[in-house]
Amino acid sequence: MPELRKDPVVGRWIVFSPERQIRPERYRCEELPPTRPEEDPFLEGHEGYTPGEVYAIRPGGGAPNTPGWQVRVVPNRFPALRVEGQLEREAVGFYDRMNGVGAHEVVIETPHPKLVLEKQSLSGVARVLEACRSRIIDLSRDVRLHYILIFKNHGARAGATMPHPHTQLIAMPVTPIVVKEKLTAARAYYLEKDRNLFEDILKAEKKTGDRVVFENDGFVAFCPFASRFPFEACILPKKQSPDFHATSDGDLVLAAEAIQRVLSAYTTALDQPDYNLILHTAPFRRSRRPDAWSTIDFDFRWHIEILPRLTGIAGFEFGTGFYINPTLPEEAANVLREAMTNG
Amino acid sequence: MPELRKDPVVGRWIVFSPERQIRPERYRCEELPPTRPEEDPFLEGHEGYTPGEVYAIRPGGGAPNTPGWQVRVVPNRFPALRVEGQLEREAVGFYDRMNGVGAHEVVIETPHPKLVLEKQSLSGVARVLEACRSRIIDLSRDVRLHYILIFKNHGARAGATMPHPHTQLIAMPVTPIVVKEKLTAARAYYLEKDRNLFEDILKAEKKTGDRVVFENDGFVAFCPFASRFPFEACILPKKQSPDFHATSDGDLVLAAEAIQRVLSAYTTALDQPDYNLILHTAPFRRSRRPDAWSTIDFDFRWHIEILPRLTGIAGFEFGTGFYINPTLPEEAANVLREAMTNG
Repeated sequence: MPELRKDPVVGRWIVFSPERQIRPERYRCEELPPTRPEEDPFLEGHEGYTPGEVYAIRPGGGAPNTPGWQVRVVPNRFPALRVEGQLEREAVGFYDRMNGVGAHEVVIETPHPKLVLEKQSLSGVARVLEACRSRIIDLSRDVRLHYILIFKNHGARAGATMPHPHTQLIAMPVTPIVVKEKLTAARAYYLEKDRNLFEDILKAEKKTGDRVVFENDGFVAFCPFASRFPFEACILPKKQSPDFHATSDGDLVLAAEAIQRVLSAYTTALDQPDYNLILHTAPFRRSRRPDAWSTIDFDFRWHIEILPRLTGIAGFEFGTGFYINPTLPEEAANVLREAMTNG
Repeated sequence: MPELRKDPVVGRWIVFSPERQIRPERYRCEELPPTRPEEDPFLEGHEGYTPGEVYAIRPGGGAPNTPGWQVRVVPNRFPALRVEGQLEREAVGFYDRMNGVGAHEVVIETPHPKLVLEKQSLSGVARVLEACRSRIIDLSRDVRLHYILIFKNHGARAGATMPHPHTQLIAMPVTPIVVKEKLTAARAYYLEKDRNLFEDILKAEKKTGDRVVFENDGFVAFCPFASRFPFEACILPKKQSPDFHATSDGDLVLAAEAIQRVLSAYTTALDQPDYNLILHTAPFRRSRRPDAWSTIDFDFRWHIEILPRLTGIAGFEFGTGFYINPTLPEEAANVLREAMTNG
């Protein structure tokens, strides 16, 4: 059973997951070795290599864990958190711990081992988002869970251990610090100004346009004013909604287009960089203090962050929480826009 | 002039430092290529390759920027922050920025290009700490500066770009978020319990001993209960003091011993891992709200974190602020203690 421990100084939870230790040198930063087809657990026909699927899109029908799928979601074989068991929050002497209850799933984006997300059809990218939406709705029924993070590690430098295109989902018994910080800031801003922080960011970005990379009817993609990483991008919905899982089918396609255009621009401009993609949606409203959520429909908006891993994290970043970024977002946006025109 | 920009959601400052862009592929994660002796700017006799020194220990005397030194401190050639200019805090439309005023210095630990910190004599390690203490005291006179971070990036995976052993110092016009979080937690703990948080951690660690790696008269080195990384270590002084730069010569030698013993255990047990070392000391008390510092002599204690870079930072860590760690600190401490006995 994985174990969660709380840092007594900064209140950060750490997931201790000894089972993941058997993964050899997962972050050793070399290129990912190509998986031999006969060993790829995400290949069509290899459904038995993974834990039983929890979701799949099979346009022609067919039994679970058989070929014929376009997207397939399975539990992670080396889960950071597990669905079994009780939380058991407890003190260990001076410290706090709880059991690592949660879920850790893999969204296999395609049966094709080399069809990266930006090379998929628009409906292919939308299917991946649809699978994520469906899993959040399903897992939201588990009252032990407070938050679900959708994320993607692409390439060895971004922490991927499998080259076959996939996205991940971790459902947690606590709301993560990074999300809490955003929620707190969004609420404070709303209470002070009676305006939505994310709407004001959109307005500021559209006003100058210097950092905007792409826009369609539903979304704006831009390089944030205080980007942590060179070519970092944020995709923000134009419609106010705290919950990604409330997104309509039509808006999923528009979100898919924004993701695809940004990733394609990276491929053209930056020679296929490794990247992390993060989707921040609101937590499930399970707090015993419901007033904490009273304005969330107005103050918080779900969004996507894409972080190319061209630079790293070193002592300065760990020691301060600040980042040193050599590339201004105005320059980055300019390069990405050109890549979209010429790419 | 580097520029600092504030993230409007989480309040994090980002340092935009376009000059650093000329450093080729600094974080590409390959092994560091060995520097050819004729190109090593930190070698004895190459004093003219670096900006003029701001500090040096020359036991036989001698002019600045000439051979004969044991430790030498020079401005970074590619500084993230610069000493020239005014802060100029200002709004840019909706956003906040300021000039990147500060200092970025390199502590060349030794004239020998391959003499890593843990292979130095105890007095050699103490000299490096002495240089850091001296630079903090000097820079503390600049009223624009609020905080100084001492850190060390060892190896390419930890963000180093030069193999010649060195430590870095960045002086900043703002107190970093990570430090603010620790200060806030320490103060809240003290006000609530009338006890020092770090003293209570020391007591908890010494009570079980499971995570303690090394102890001498001045310091305890242990693997924290909620370690972010496998084999992470914390070195905590036994004496209450918020300020590293108030440490006595005798205590510097004891701190040097603790650092050296932990790094040597890494070398033995983990095959010379890349690592980051971070020294967290209190900010200069320049706040316009002096009451914020009224209890700092009792509530905050300076300390050192050492983070081996065996695992990386991926989407989950960026998206949550949590970490997945495959190694329990009790196991890590056990391995390190054994390495100290046998190493």
